[in-house]
This record gives sequence, C-alpha cells and structure tokens, in this order.
Amino acid sequence: MKTKYSLLIVISLATMLTSMAQLKPFTLDDLIPGGKNYRAMQPATMANTWWGNRLIRLESTKCSILNPGNRWATLTEQQDVKDAMSAAGLNAKDCPSLATARFPDASHSEMVLQNAKCLLIYDWKLKRLAHYVTFKTEASWHDYSAAAGAVAYNRGNNLYIAKTNHAGNDEEALQVSTDGSHDIVYGQSVHRNEFGISKGTFWSPDGKRLCFYRMDQSMVPDYPLVDIGHRIAEPQPIKYPMAGTASHKVSIGIFNMRSKETVWLETGDNTNQYYCGITWSPDSRKIYLYNLNRDQNHARLIQFDASTGRQEKVIMEERHAKYVEPQHGLTFLPWDDDKFIYWSQQSGYDNLYLYSLKQGRAIRNLTSGHKGGVVLDLLGFNPAQRSVIISTTWAAPLQHNLFSVRVDDGQATPLDGGQGVHSGKLSADGSQIIDSWTSPDVPRKVDLVQTATGKRVTLLENYGQWKGHAIPEITCGTLKAADGKTNLFYRMVKPVNFDANKKYPAIVYVYGGPHTRLVNASWGYGYRGWEIYMAQLGYVMFILDGRGSSERGLEFENVTFRQLGTEEMRDQMRGVEFLKSLPYVDGTRLGVHGWSFGGFMTTDLMLTYPEVFKAGVAGGPVIDWSLYEVMYGERYMDTPQTNPEGYHDNNLCLRAGNLKGRLLIVFGYNDPVCVPQHTLSFLRACADAGTHPDLFTYPGAEHNMAGHDRVHLYEHITRYFEDHLK
Amino acid sequence: MKTKYSLLIVISLATMLTSMAQLKPFTLDDLIPGGKNYRAMQPATMANTWWGNRLIRLESTKCSILNPGNRWATLTEQQDVKDAMSAAGLNAKDCPSLATARFPDASHSEMVLQNAKCLLIYDWKLKRLAHYVTFKTEASWHDYSAAAGAVAYNRGNNLYIAKTNHAGNDEEALQVSTDGSHDIVYGQSVHRNEFGISKGTFWSPDGKRLCFYRMDQSMVPDYPLVDIGHRIAEPQPIKYPMAGTASHKVSIGIFNMRSKETVWLETGDNTNQYYCGITWSPDSRKIYLYNLNRDQNHARLIQFDASTGRQEKVIMEERHAKYVEPQHGLTFLPWDDDKFIYWSQQSGYDNLYLYSLKQGRAIRNLTSGHKGGVVLDLLGFNPAQRSVIISTTWAAPLQHNLFSVRVDDGQATPLDGGQGVHSGKLSADGSQIIDSWTSPDVPRKVDLVQTATGKRVTLLENYGQWKGHAIPEITCGTLKAADGKTNLFYRMVKPVNFDANKKYPAIVYVYGGPHTRLVNASWGYGYRGWEIYMAQLGYVMFILDGRGSSERGLEFENVTFRQLGTEEMRDQMRGVEFLKSLPYVDGTRLGVHGWSFGGFMTTDLMLTYPEVFKAGVAGGPVIDWSLYEVMYGERYMDTPQTNPEGYHDNNLCLRAGNLKGRLLIVFGYNDPVCVPQHTLSFLRACADAGTHPDLFTYPGAEHNMAGHDRVHLYEHITRYFEDHLK
Repeated sequence: MKTKYSLLIVISLATMLTSMAQLKPFTLDDLIPGGKNYRAMQPATMANTWWGNRLIRLESTKCSILNPGNRWATLTEQQDVKDAMSAAGLNAKDCPSLATARFPDASHSEMVLQNAKCLLIYDWKLKRLAHYVTFKTEASWHDYSAAAGAVAYNRGNNLYIAKTNHAGNDEEALQVSTDGSHDIVYGQSVHRNEFGISKGTFWSPDGKRLCFYRMDQSMVPDYPLVDIGHRIAEPQPIKYPMAGTASHKVSIGIFNMRSKETVWLETGDNTNQYYCGITWSPDSRKIYLYNLNRDQNHARLIQFDASTGRQEKVIMEERHAKYVEPQHGLTFLPWDDDKFIYWSQQSGYDNLYLYSLKQGRAIRNLTSGHKGGVVLDLLGFNPAQRSVIISTTWAAPLQHNLFSVRVDDGQATPLDGGQGVHSGKLSADGSQIIDSWTSPDVPRKVDLVQTATGKRVTLLENYGQWKGHAIPEITCGTLKAADGKTNLFYRMVKPVNFDANKKYPAIVYVYGGPHTRLVNASWGYGYRGWEIYMAQLGYVMFILDGRGSSERGLEFENVTFRQLGTEEMRDQMRGVEFLKSLPYVDGTRLGVHGWSFGGFMTTDLMLTYPEVFKAGVAGGPVIDWSLYEVMYGERYMDTPQTNPEGYHDNNLCLRAGNLKGRLLIVFGYNDPVCVPQHTLSFLRACADAGTHPDLFTYPGAEHNMAGHDRVHLYEHITRYFEDHLK
Repeated sequence: MKTKYSLLIVISLATMLTSMAQLKPFTLDDLIPGGKNYRAMQPATMANTWWGNRLIRLESTKCSILNPGNRWATLTEQQDVKDAMSAAGLNAKDCPSLATARFPDASHSEMVLQNAKCLLIYDWKLKRLAHYVTFKTEASWHDYSAAAGAVAYNRGNNLYIAKTNHAGNDEEALQVSTDGSHDIVYGQSVHRNEFGISKGTFWSPDGKRLCFYRMDQSMVPDYPLVDIGHRIAEPQPIKYPMAGTASHKVSIGIFNMRSKETVWLETGDNTNQYYCGITWSPDSRKIYLYNLNRDQNHARLIQFDASTGRQEKVIMEERHAKYVEPQHGLTFLPWDDDKFIYWSQQSGYDNLYLYSLKQGRAIRNLTSGHKGGVVLDLLGFNPAQRSVIISTTWAAPLQHNLFSVRVDDGQATPLDGGQGVHSGKLSADGSQIIDSWTSPDVPRKVDLVQTATGKRVTLLENYGQWKGHAIPEITCGTLKAADGKTNLFYRMVKPVNFDANKKYPAIVYVYGGPHTRLVNASWGYGYRGWEIYMAQLGYVMFILDGRGSSERGLEFENVTFRQLGTEEMRDQMRGVEFLKSLPYVDGTRLGVHGWSFGGFMTTDLMLTYPEVFKAGVAGGPVIDWSLYEVMYGERYMDTPQTNPEGYHDNNLCLRAGNLKGRLLIVFGYNDPVCVPQHTLSFLRACADAGTHPDLFTYPGAEHNMAGHDRVHLYEHITRYFEDHLK
C-alpha cells in the first residue's frame, strides 16, 4: 500500500483563514448536528437532481434550473404549487417541500412532489396540478412509478396501490394485501435493512407489475420497549430476532396491475433464508434475486418468471468459508438487455463483473487491475461511450474518486482531479455528472463534469462559517496493524494553541466495526465536530480505522470472523502505543469513546486494558452478541450454538468485574437496534461484580440521539471527560 | 414541648468502648444491610414468640423454651422435624425454618411450621407430624386458622382453602373463586397496602367462615415494567392506578366452610371506595369495617351480618377537611364482647377510644391527658387487671414506651424505664411482655417484663461487633420549624477524629414524607450505617425530621396537604441554616441524599435551592405526583383535576432547567412503587432544558435495593459525593 499517506501529512483547516485575530471558540451548538447553529456553520452543499440532462437545484421553497452559461433560473416557487393546490380544492398547507422534487420525464414539464399526505404531479409551465392523489391516512412512504401511473404504499402493514393518473383521493386504491398485522408485514424493507435492502416494493420497468416483500415475523418474539411519552407509559413491542433464535420468513409477491392478482416467487422453503438484490429484467418479464442461506456462506443468484413466479434457473452461486454478503442488485447494460453488471468480492475486493445471460457466464472483471482498491458505487452509464461511471478507492485508500470504465475492455478514465471524496449523480444520458466533493483542505465544492472529457466547472464552493474561530490542527498518518503488515490510517486533532512542551490528555474515538470508516480524505480527514470542541478544551483526539472496518477489502474486514472485538482491539492498542510514544501526550490520561459497535469497543477496551484507559464513554453499546439480531450478528459471529467460544469470549457481562477506570454508558431508551437489554445486563453484571459504571439514557431516543438531544449528549460526554480525565 | 431534648444532648457510641487503641475503619459490608458482615456486626436481637405464657426463642434450626430461673432449654431441633417429615414420606429438604414457628394452642405441644411448599403441625413431644398439608404449586403465603383446621391461600389470583386436620396434599382443597386473573384478584391485600391493610383473608374466631377481599382491577391500566432476566427481555406489566385515573373496585366475600357458599357484604356501589379495618365480632356473627370515600375525607364504620352480608348499621362516622386515615381495625375487650377499642386522630393525636355497641356511643378516650403524644401500638390486654397494654410517645417525643392503661378509668402505668424505643409481645394472659428495646447508648436489650408490676429481667444484652472500630460522635438536638414555633429533632454525625478547627463538607439525609421518622431515641438516635461510613470519610451528616413526618400528630403531618414538598423543604432549609452556622461546616460543600419521598425531596431541594446544594443523590424519586398511585397520592394531594396548582407547583419536570449542582438519580429498574416513568420523565425534561443529572439503575431491583445491591448502591452514592463534594 504505497500511498502518499505513508508519511504524516498535515493539513490545517486554519490554512483557509486569513486572520488569526479575535478568534472565538466554537460551541457544541456550532459543531454538533442538531445544534442551533450547526447548519449555518457547516459548509453548505447543494441539493440537486436531473430533469433529463438539465440540472435542477432543489430548495424547500424553490426549484432552479441551470441554463447555458451556468446561470441559475427559477423554475418554480413553492407558492405556485400551493396556488395550484388551492385551485384544485386541496389544502395548500399540505404542500410538500420542493427539496425532494423529482423529474421523471424529460419530455414533460412535470415534477413529482410528495409527502405523507399527498403525491402531486405538478406542471410548472401550466402552473397546475396535472394529477394528484391525497391519502386519507398518512403513510410512511410511497413508491411512485411514472410508467405505472401509480403509487404503492404501506398502511397498517398492508400494501396498497393508488392510481396517480387522475385527480382525487386514495379511496379507490387497490388493496394488495389484507392480512397485514404486527406479525405479517407487506411492502416494507425486510431482513432489518441488511444485504443492501432499503425498501419493500419494486415496480417493473413497464409499470405493469409490482414486486413486493411479505414478511411473516409471527415466530419472532417481541422485545418490550417502553414509550414514556404518554400519561401512563405504554408498551412499545418490536419484533427482534436475536442471534440463534427463530428468524422471520420472507416471501416475494408479484402483483399484476391488470389481473389484480398476486403470484408468489417459487423460492422453496423460506425458513432461514434471505432474499435480496431484487432486480427486474429490462423487458419486465424476469425477476432476479440473491438467495442467501442463514449461515450467510452460500449465495445463489436466481432467475424467476415474473408472470408465473416459477423459478427458472440458478444463474450463479458464490460461497465463502466465512461469509458472502450480496449488497447490490444487477445492473443491465442500457444498450444490451443480455448483459448485466454484478458485484462480487470473490477477488478479495469489491469488483464489477459483466455477465451474459445468453452465454451463461461472466465475461470479464470490469474493474480488475486495481489491486487493493474497491468499487464503492455504480452511478450509471454513458451509453454513447459504452462506459459505466463508478466511484472507487483506486486513486488512494482514503479517497472516493469517479471513473468512467469502458465496458468493452475495462479501461478506466479518471473523472476528477484524483483528490478527495467525490459523490455524483449522472444525467439521463450519462453525459454529465453533478459532483459534490471535498478534500482535506476543501470543505465543499459542487462541480458539473462532462463524462466524455472530464471537463468540470465549479457551481458551488463553500467554506461554512468557520472564519474567526480557533481551529485546531488536524493530521493524518499511517500505522502498522497488529498483524505487523497492514497499513492503518489515523486522524489526529491537536489541541488549539498546541504547545509541544505540554502534556495533554488524549481520547481515542473508535468505531471499529464493519461497514464504516472514520478516516477519509474529506475535509479535515473526516473530522467530527466534537473533536474540534475537545481540541479547544485541550485534548488530543485520535481516530484509527483498524482491521474490520470498511473500504479496504474482504480480508481486512473478515479477519474478525467469529471473534468480533478481539482483533479490532489489538489494532486500537497499536494506536494507543503510538499515542503514548508522543512526547506531548500524557499516557496516564487516556480516554476512549465510541457509539454502537464503538460503544462495544469502548467497553471492551476499558475491561481488557483497565490499566490503560482512565475514562471512557460507551454509547448504545453491544454488550453480548447473543442479544444482537440474526442478520448482522450471525454474519460475523455465526450463532451462539455454533460458536459458543466466540460469544463467550466477547460477552462483556462476563468481564464486568475488570472495570477499573470510569466508564459512562449512554443509550437511547427506545433503541430498536442495540436494545436496552445490552446495557441493562451489563449494569446487572457490574452490580453483581462490585464494579461501578455510570449511566445516562434519553427517553424517546432510538439508537442515535437526534435533534438537540445530540448537543445535550456531547455536553454530557464532554463533562464526563472533564470530570475524570482532565 | 418541654422535653429533655430541648438542649443538645451528646451521646457517643464510643462510650461503650474500653480502648481506643488499634481502631479500624468500618467497611460498607459492615454497615449496610445486605453487607457480608452486616449481621455479625449488628447488635443481635432475639426472635421469639409465646406458647401460652411460656416464652419461646426462635432460631432457624432450633426452638428453645424459657424455664423457671430464666434458663433456656431446647424444645426441638429442626432435624427432629426433618426426621418426622421423612417418617411421613415427605421430602425433608422442604422443611420450613423454625424461625417463624407459631404455637397457637397453649394446651398442646404442637407448633405450626410453614413455607411455600408445606404447612406442618408438629408435635415436639411425640416427635411426629400431627397434621400437614403439602402444596402442589408454591403459594406466596398461607393464612392458617387453628380453629378452622384449615389454611387459606392464593394461587393464580384465586382463593383456595386446604384442610389441615389431616395428612396429605392440597389436591382436595376447596377452590373458593374461579375467575381470578391479572384483572381479578382474590384473597390478597388491596388498596396497595394503604389504610393499614397487609393481607386479604380474615378467619372468623370460630373458624367457620373466611372473610376475603376480591379486587377488580380490570379498569386499571398496566404499567409496563420490563424483566431483563430472560434470554429475551419480557414484559412485566403491573396494575398501577395513577392519581386522578380509574381506580380498582373491591368487594368483600364471606365464605361459609359448611355450606361452601360465599355471600358478599352489601357495601353498595364500590366505585371509588376503600374498605379497611376488617374486624370480626368475638362471636363470629358480625363483620365491621371502615368505608372510606375516594376523597379520603369521610370514613364510616359499618356493621354487617356475616351470614347474610347485609349491612346493619353505621356505627360512627368521621370527617376531616383534609383527610382521615383509618389504619386500625377494632379491638374487642376480652372480658366484654359489647365493647371495643378504636383508634382516632380526632383530638389531633392518635388516641384510643372505648366504644359500647349497646349504648351506641364512645364511652371514653382511654388515652386522653397526654397532649402532644401519640399511641403507636396496641399490644393486647391483661384481663386480670382489666388493662390494655400499649406503646406511646408519651414519655418523650423521640421515644416509644410501653404502658398499661386501665380500661375502666384510663389510668396509665409505665412498664419500662421511660427511656429509649421499646417494642413488645404480650403473653397469652397478658401477664408478661417480652420487650426488645434500645436507647441512644444501649444497642439492644431484650427484657422479660411482668405487666402487673413492671418488674423486668434482662434476657439478652448485645453490643454487636463494634468494638475496635473508630466510631463517630452522634448528637441529637432540636431546631424550630419554618413556622417559627414547632420543635423539630435532628441527628448529627460528626466526622471521626473530629477537629473543630477544620471545615468539613456536610450531607443532609432526608425523607420528609408521612408515615416515617428518622430520628428517635434508639441506639445512636436511629443512625444509619452509611452515616457512620461517611463520618469516617470526613463528612458531617445531618438528619432532620420536619413537619410532614410521623409520630408528632395530625397537624404536624397534614400541614403539607395539597402541596407535598413545599413546607417540608422550608423545614429542611432551617436545618441547612443551622448547619451553615456551625464553624466546622463548609457551607459551600453541602450535599443532600434521600430515597423515595426523600428522593423527591432531594431533587426538589436541588432545583429549588440551586445555589445551596453542590451535590445530591436522589433514589427512587417521585418526580410528578400525577404518576404516583391514587391511595397514597390523593390522600395528600387530592387529584390532578381538583388540585391542578398543587400538582403543577410540585412537578419537578417543570423545573428541570433549574438544576445547577450535581444530581445523581438511582432507581430500581423494576420499581412497582415509584415507577420508572418518574425518573425517565425527569431525564427527558432535563435533556430538553439543557441540564445534566446523572443516573444509575439496578435491573431486577424494586423500590429499594435488596441484598448486596444495597452495599453496591452505597458504594456508588459515596463515590458520587467523593467526586463532587469532597
């Protein structure tokens, strides 16, 4: 991994400041999401979408269109939509925000606006509602298909479809299912959003059929959350399948809009099976999906007939001794219905492969030749160039860069300057990308890029409101992992007014689990606001992405298999050794903080290295993997029955007696992810073992604190370190 | 109140020590109930009971009898009982402890032993089981009647009666009720143990009928407690009627042992009615009870015919503008079935009155002439002397002393030395009392007293294992209440190795609510072990019983009516002023701690006097009286509907923003008394208001921490003060 990060690189945020006079401190309200000044302080980005190949800028009360010469012109104001609603007899107060407007049809001046109360198809040229549907009861989401002229939605765990090619309410909506209940759920995301699943309905391209999930969770026990926001507290039971216990069963239905009948995919026995990556064939006649076994070590890509539900063939299979994790559906080539792109880590890294249905085989790895880098996103295609536009870590392990890859030979062309973290949206014909990016010293830029040439023009450049504040130095560097060979990246934030002759307390902020990384090549190396705040108070902040974290390939991640926590801690301790080697770090005043998996790591580190850490704050921690859910937990830990040692060794209740430093645990009282039983079991174990963690909880909060609670949380955490580490 | 406590009295526990050499500190395990050494350290008392007029000493594995010459002789060993069980084919492992043996019949050598598995009638002379019944399912309690030859018990919320005059199991038990459920409960205590109620079955003296409660709580919502002691946490719903909401309805049945039929007392509509003080007439033909309205300001003593359930007459009524609180049933004179003694506070203090049924009126106040003192207990009678034996505060407000009162003229004779706190049990003919007592410098004595003469002999004298420890000075004194006239008593514990020239932090320990007092004339003025511990650590501990607390009469208590917390805090602040006036108290380092009502007071004091208290620990606090239950809460606060100002003014959520000092709240996660919604609502309010209490909870614990959790609790509390007050 011979990257430019192998040496310590220092990029100070202060470089953008012109004057150091009259510097003022940040408040947590400036720095923490949910804070009163947070939005104003942050570098603004630009919400946008495409209307065919025309770029649209989205604001809550206005849509603008980018005209030639890169000049913005107002397309419509929200007041116009409200007037149109009033004219149609609707309540203008229910008008959706324009910030989420969509423009599905490049040939019409129609935008789709929706919220829980209505779905509007608004013609901004005629300034009137072309169609609309209002919902008698608020639905949590809608899945609209322009081709179908209909919107699917879920209410009371049943699935409905309302026509949108008329003007009226949803009184005459089709009710696709009738037995929806707490136990049976239709048309919602399943498998707890693992395996890349984020929704439960999938329209066919021609709009004639709707594919949907049905989840039978009657065999899954309720976890008894409690809602105190009533005169008398009320039970708030949630279905929560814990590792090793009965899991829900999922079926996939295909509703035919003409016959009004549902056929079910013939998946076979759906006990202990996962279904993901649902993809329609371009001709709307086939359904593809991955069927993964509960052990998550064997995935089959299967083709079904959409009209009969019949299973036609297994396209391919993938096995792995640890786990396979299909997270993406198929992407058919726009110019060739026979070929699709699929994702696989079979090479050890996320790559894209081209598959031919006629040939019945993978034709080539489109993204080979970039060892050690991974594909992160598939933005779409430029059919004129027969290229696919993707985002990868190829340029450098901390970066996300955009590339155009020729499908015919895999030749890749960079589309950005090879710096920073880019994310883009492709225009309809793939000729342009709107690229929102950042790099260690660039807070935010939004560029319009020509995919054929890579030529770009900056539409927005934003530094936020940091000017006039005292900003600490943020550095990035590498360390060797505990295996002695893997490079790991860290971020360090030094105290404001740093004095190398002083000794500072230091806090490790940690996550450590899969699917996340904390250090990247975005502004300030991906700093979090709290780090800036603590640097103001005189702490050295240190963040290291150890093995087990994301974007570094399969082996980097799966080294933790069946022993979550163990290798991750070894790597964090390499970071601690480094910290202790620094002359300006007071090795007797080390703290640690993390949330969720990072709360688990924090607690585990406090118990495993009681002489090292003086104070820690664990948020929403996993304490015992047998209390975590089956989909995520069993992927990495197998089951308590098949991996008793792993569950035992990493069950923190069993080591509660080791606690020596000060450990604050904070959890959301209504956390449906790491249910309160984790923290409560640990408290019970500590009381029994005679050790003394501290505690806080936010009633009404879920896995993360939202809104101003988040500011309160970081006040609380800060106070804890000030009490016990300063 | 011209008492000997009007001057500061100093009694050091150290006076009992002969040497100050090699003093060692106490541990919390020495001082806190549930601690590993607690029992060994405490002055032992002596469990005992009467077999007619013979005193029996009870230990878990042995019963002894006091022979002439005051020599103990072994009556039976538990092994004998086990052998008898084995001989009868029972499992000796199920043998009950002998510590709770009863000796109902002075004419037979039979003791009654029972636990959840069996009830044994064991003949210690014949060394065999005379009768027994074993229970196929464990029952939580049994109510045995020797006269009935039967035991009543509750299982699955239904009421059963098993015969005990045979040898066998309870297969053929009578099932008195069949619709017992979570909603309908038979034979258990009702009205949440208020109004002196502690059980739900009442045998007639002749054993031919069983009176029992039936409680319909179907209209009472469940409070959703959660039990985490399972593989997956489980709901643990409890019926909890909150102030101002629907309350349960109670009926009283009389089961006839011969006809096997139940008649119901004709109480009229039982909506919003309380029934207490259930008393059988000596001839078993009548039932008396108090019927109190929900507003608790009107009690009626009513007579029912036990065979028909018909209401015969209202014996008397009592009203009060604030509340009346009947807590005692009637006590008929053993020598005159026409007359009973009843309790009343109508004079402003608890007095006993003699009532004649024939005359239909109260004949006299038996305990008048002792202004300012209250009757605490009625032990029984000495029929030969026509006297009633009672316990009172007549000798001094901090004391409990025993008196013999002549029923014919009310003349009282003291039965103890006029010191300390006494409690006694009367022998069958009332000629002897076994008196277990303590005074500020007497840890424990157990004396046998002749009620005719007051002559006493000491059977046990015990100092515990305090010798060799460093013991702080404990003092007692009086202060004026905030009303400027009422004397209040305090206890103060000074730091070990006290140095009057130093400045010490001070902690107020507070309860403050009705039905409790903390300062009395028992050993060390009723010190709590934690006070000794904190004195070791260098804290001044201060405890003041303000107005609103018990044993000082009605007006002293009910001054708090409809504004619980307000007057109580004013009195506590008088204590704080006194503390701050002491040269050796550091007025900038004041703390406060209390549990339950004391947790409410602690939180209230922290919010109301944020500049005064630097740190506090509130345990199981009431936060909002509308979340407390109807029986206790509405007595003092009326309902949220009728007293909105009182509920508003004393709702601590509404003042969460005032918090400035450090406040730790601790609660039992399964607290069925002050349900977790109190603390959780407060946390929510603090998060919203931007203030920062601290938190701890004990999963599985109820309103108070039991067993070793209690030691852990006081370690935790101590640490908090050491962190933030030292």
